[in-house]
Amino acid sequence: MAEMVSNKQVILNNYVSGFPKEPDMSITTNTIQLKVPEDSTGILVKNLYLSCDPYMRPRMQKLDGSYVESFKPGSPIYGYGVAKVLDSGHPRFKKGDLIWGMTGWEEYALIATPQSLLSLFKIQHTDVPLSYYTGILGMPGMTAYAGFYEVCSPKLGEYVYVSAASGAVGQLVGQFAKLLGCYVVGSAGSKDKVDLLMNKFKFDEAFNYKEEEDLNAALKRYFPEGIDIYFENVGGKMLDAVLLNMRARGRIAVCGMISQYNLDKPEGVYNLTTLISKGIRMEGFLVPDYYHLYPKYLEMIIPHIKEGKIVYVEDVAEGLESAPSALIGLFSGRNVGKQVVAVARE
Amino acid sequence: MAEMVSNKQVILNNYVSGFPKEPDMSITTNTIQLKVPEDSTGILVKNLYLSCDPYMRPRMQKLDGSYVESFKPGSPIYGYGVAKVLDSGHPRFKKGDLIWGMTGWEEYALIATPQSLLSLFKIQHTDVPLSYYTGILGMPGMTAYAGFYEVCSPKLGEYVYVSAASGAVGQLVGQFAKLLGCYVVGSAGSKDKVDLLMNKFKFDEAFNYKEEEDLNAALKRYFPEGIDIYFENVGGKMLDAVLLNMRARGRIAVCGMISQYNLDKPEGVYNLTTLISKGIRMEGFLVPDYYHLYPKYLEMIIPHIKEGKIVYVEDVAEGLESAPSALIGLFSGRNVGKQVVAVARE
Repeated sequence: MAEMVSNKQVILNNYVSGFPKEPDMSITTNTIQLKVPEDSTGILVKNLYLSCDPYMRPRMQKLDGSYVESFKPGSPIYGYGVAKVLDSGHPRFKKGDLIWGMTGWEEYALIATPQSLLSLFKIQHTDVPLSYYTGILGMPGMTAYAGFYEVCSPKLGEYVYVSAASGAVGQLVGQFAKLLGCYVVGSAGSKDKVDLLMNKFKFDEAFNYKEEEDLNAALKRYFPEGIDIYFENVGGKMLDAVLLNMRARGRIAVCGMISQYNLDKPEGVYNLTTLISKGIRMEGFLVPDYYHLYPKYLEMIIPHIKEGKIVYVEDVAEGLESAPSALIGLFSGRNVGKQVVAVARE
Repeated sequence: MAEMVSNKQVILNNYVSGFPKEPDMSITTNTIQLKVPEDSTGILVKNLYLSCDPYMRPRMQKLDGSYVESFKPGSPIYGYGVAKVLDSGHPRFKKGDLIWGMTGWEEYALIATPQSLLSLFKIQHTDVPLSYYTGILGMPGMTAYAGFYEVCSPKLGEYVYVSAASGAVGQLVGQFAKLLGCYVVGSAGSKDKVDLLMNKFKFDEAFNYKEEEDLNAALKRYFPEGIDIYFENVGGKMLDAVLLNMRARGRIAVCGMISQYNLDKPEGVYNLTTLISKGIRMEGFLVPDYYHLYPKYLEMIIPHIKEGKIVYVEDVAEGLESAPSALIGLFSGRNVGKQVVAVARE
């Protein structure tokens, strides 16, 4: 008979509307057997780090006929995480393996559906912080890499603007753009974050968008020649202001629109005719479509991390109990850097 | 002493706001010498056909800091046209040549700036209607060709939706898509146009958008599997409805947004977060960036025209006097097919 242990879980109580609040989730304690069921090809993992990402917000509401699935009220929510394999019925994984990929928001999780198993990556490099696999070495890293290098078609000397620039993805995009020899301006929502952009990530310029009454005027000030590349993380009014400041043949990688996720009705965007007059490409992208580039990305990024050429700032919340608050903090901008939840250290 | 002749011109009286009206333009008569000035590298042409295109509307208003130039109140407006060279100071052109490109809205025009001269094409094939060089063999043809084949990345069997589908560009996009083996649905604003789409251009389906109360529901009916490619000519509410019906990895070529050009404030577009969840590319383009493909396009299209595999419907207004009414008719959808003004037949 296998060991039964208690298993804390983060449950979605009900579909959310508006800004998510802590009472929208609850922590419950269940028990779990630390073995995969007989004949299962799943794996049983101990979660170490969980990733808080803005894309999780839409999944907290009922999504009818959408391409993505809602979380199920009454069940644990799920997302990217780093975990250790405790038992495996799958030939690709064995006990002791470290993995990153989709896992439940709980202490221990059974990952058993073919699709979830396919989406898991085995961690090969352990001489970097393991939590990095929720960020720079995980989905947000690939998002920045694919979004900037593949979607933005960047060229030396181009003018690059990044919104939500101190976040999990933005901080990397800015540093990638600097590495390539672009001129990079970032915006964020507090003085601390702006300082981080300037002093830690070495953006050329940075500003606090909350202190700008007129975003169009602010962008004109930072980009008198216009913007070649906009890495879009926020949407709404910021996008509208950016559209007025794009240069001919500009590119907008549409990575996220965090300003819109908590609104009952999204804001209108009014300046799309500039796509025509300036020949602008505005492109959303599905990160998994680029996961075949992950080995190539690791080859590039691991040496940069070790040599300190690329830095990464995390905001780590301790314990599964802190997970709901960490997640909702994303939407008020409370986190400084990539928001991680440390569930266990090993 | 060179011959002086009278020269009727279409003058923009004042910057336009809202829908343009006939009194926004006037016909005046001037005189012109049918020779290029001494030492000029310009050419003196007799205009044969003038092209009425939606992009001309924004130029009728004051465009501050825009990428495109406004027409000048008190001066003739200008646009694409077909003309015959009467005198040339330029080594590339000689008397008797037929050309298409930017010309003034007048009977005779002096084309003298280096930029205008660079934008002129010499007409080589004269065994097709000359007016076609304002449409299928001119800028709209290249717009459809580049927009569909280069921007939309179309594949056999994909679901293609074209708005303003009986217009100068739309009718070609639909036929190109059919040639490639796509499933094509078009929308237009009258029963006559819908009939044209079905019977003349052989779209798979067509509908009158003015008879649809709910554009989202209409698109769901015509595209139960969703839309892979949207060729955008109208903008606004139509774009919003299309965004809800795009498939994952869909492409939107943003060619025009005719529904927005006459509004003081454009309509908001609310469903842009679908770009993220479905990984959609939405791309404006500058047709001149693709003019190097013009010889390749001619090689493809001329045999198709001669064999009747591609047809082209024009709406020809007779005489320069009819030009203002023909131009403003675009914005109420009065034209059926490509709107041309025949100034002279030879």
